[in-house]
Amino acid sequence: MEETSQKILVTALGNTVATPSEGITASILVVRTFEEFDQLPAGQVKGKVVLFDHAFDDFAARAGRWEQAYSSAVQYRNDGPARAAMKGAVATLVRSAGSGGFRMPHTGVTKYKDGVQQIPAAAVPAEDADLIATLAKQGQVVIHLVLTPHDLPPVESYNVIADLKGAQFPEQVVIVSGHLDSWDLGRGALDDAAGVAIAMDVLRIIKEIRPHPKRTLRFVAWMNEENGGAGGRAYAQDHKSELSDHVAAIEIDYGDGRPLGLNISATDDRVAPISQILETIAEPVGGVIKVSESPGSDLASINQAGVPAMAPLQDARHYFDYHHTPADTFDKVRIDELRRNVEAISSLAYALAQHD
Amino acid sequence: MEETSQKILVTALGNTVATPSEGITASILVVRTFEEFDQLPAGQVKGKVVLFDHAFDDFAARAGRWEQAYSSAVQYRNDGPARAAMKGAVATLVRSAGSGGFRMPHTGVTKYKDGVQQIPAAAVPAEDADLIATLAKQGQVVIHLVLTPHDLPPVESYNVIADLKGAQFPEQVVIVSGHLDSWDLGRGALDDAAGVAIAMDVLRIIKEIRPHPKRTLRFVAWMNEENGGAGGRAYAQDHKSELSDHVAAIEIDYGDGRPLGLNISATDDRVAPISQILETIAEPVGGVIKVSESPGSDLASINQAGVPAMAPLQDARHYFDYHHTPADTFDKVRIDELRRNVEAISSLAYALAQHD
Repeated sequence: MEETSQKILVTALGNTVATPSEGITASILVVRTFEEFDQLPAGQVKGKVVLFDHAFDDFAARAGRWEQAYSSAVQYRNDGPARAAMKGAVATLVRSAGSGGFRMPHTGVTKYKDGVQQIPAAAVPAEDADLIATLAKQGQVVIHLVLTPHDLPPVESYNVIADLKGAQFPEQVVIVSGHLDSWDLGRGALDDAAGVAIAMDVLRIIKEIRPHPKRTLRFVAWMNEENGGAGGRAYAQDHKSELSDHVAAIEIDYGDGRPLGLNISATDDRVAPISQILETIAEPVGGVIKVSESPGSDLASINQAGVPAMAPLQDARHYFDYHHTPADTFDKVRIDELRRNVEAISSLAYALAQHD
Repeated sequence: MEETSQKILVTALGNTVATPSEGITASILVVRTFEEFDQLPAGQVKGKVVLFDHAFDDFAARAGRWEQAYSSAVQYRNDGPARAAMKGAVATLVRSAGSGGFRMPHTGVTKYKDGVQQIPAAAVPAEDADLIATLAKQGQVVIHLVLTPHDLPPVESYNVIADLKGAQFPEQVVIVSGHLDSWDLGRGALDDAAGVAIAMDVLRIIKEIRPHPKRTLRFVAWMNEENGGAGGRAYAQDHKSELSDHVAAIEIDYGDGRPLGLNISATDDRVAPISQILETIAEPVGGVIKVSESPGSDLASINQAGVPAMAPLQDARHYFDYHHTPADTFDKVRIDELRRNVEAISSLAYALAQHD
């Protein structure tokens, strides 16, 4: 068979290491699942570039099962590079954890493991994963991979916090929030400027109605959601002694998609005083859904410390077309969908701030 | 106002020149139309990077008016750089002549003019054009543009031609064709591997039915459609004396879209002997539409020399989502749509080869 060459598109994953400047030239080993990968002897992996070719299930996402579609695919981005490195791979490619069909690599964080060598890791578009997988069935596929990310040293940065101070119980806090950081290949319009805009508008509206609600309404724009979650952890640390007075924390982090319900993670004792409110407010937007993990990853630390964490269950059928891609730009944000969220979350936040 | 910087995406146009290696740093002048541009004094253009920000009309394209949408937008890619250069611009950006909404720059050819300095020219995605236009309303927008295309010297290349030799009138020829070259940021699956595949399959099917039809059926995969049209011109030159015996030439060059009619450019005297066939064969796929210019740009030269040129009028509502972009890949090709074309074109080609 004749040798041919094809250019593929890649984007470095978050916090990955660069290749040597001359690049890496190695054979590609294509696997579909971790189960398949775990059965391979290390000898078959050593020196190779592993492609985790697990397809994001577009059909499931469009049918409303986007969480399953994403979680099933994103585990390869999260854990693939470390698992490949443990068997001696020299680099990892991951089929993008997202829909779209416009040849876009979707970036995102990957998790290296202590004591395991950090190998370069990149996402490839679905189209390029398909090409590589097809060629690999016909013979050896050799890749020349050049990745040039820079992992800059951490700098001091901040959560942005603004309070509408409570008139009656200022120490009791209701958080309404989104996150400030985003992946820089796009502009973060959906992930998560939309959430920040919704949260800001909720406070703006409530302030017009009631400049000083009973409890404190706190707007937070979290820093570092995408690549470590330091903002959420720092808040939990800094406000440790006050968290028992936090009535609830809401985060909006699924773009502009309209609310179809309200996700809540809370212990029974903390949710009891507000359960009537939740039912009443959430009913018109689809009701309350108890979830086991914090909805809104920035709320994970304060949720673990007992604060009820909430997020609108948003229509995300098309969210993963744009999520973590260059196409996450302002034009994608639908103002009517934003409004639906503002309506739902301002009702909820107001009720939580005002109830007796 | 504070200075901010934003990364924009660009792709060099076909046969453009590179910027100096250090790039070009200049203010951007945004114009919507040539009419607007023509009214500007040269002093306002000199030293600037001109952005022709004429939006491709997605809505019109989806509503079936893709030809108007494309021709209205593509004139800025074709003629914008030369017109900008004539007024002293240092580079040109063109809002992509295509739909999509996934932040893709659509490349394509541009036409420089003799005696006018060739200035670097690039396409920008719709999203980036919107950003620049919005910022330009607020203040000066300065771009640092680096383009590194190489214009390699021409090399010898070929049209690929295969004949199903006619048994009765071998000198009479019916061409069925697509084009071989494509823009290299994608893979040319729709533009125009689809057309080549349809044309090949037409001959394959007819050969099974009748290894030697009355007239010669000639498959042609044209070279250099995208960037000059040399293949079509060379054919017209090389076969000059035989063109009066060419019954018709068909080219498929709108991707996989199903046929909605048959476009024909022909003089009355050349179309008269086959008009009955055309009506009969084209009727089930939408009828015959007479067009003034050759449908199928590779057929332009032989059409001017008198050969009736034909092309299926294909459903291209989504063609310009992918046309000349990185996303023109194999997965976009819909086999059922290809089949519809093969059915229509094989009926047509067979009738043209066999009629009395």
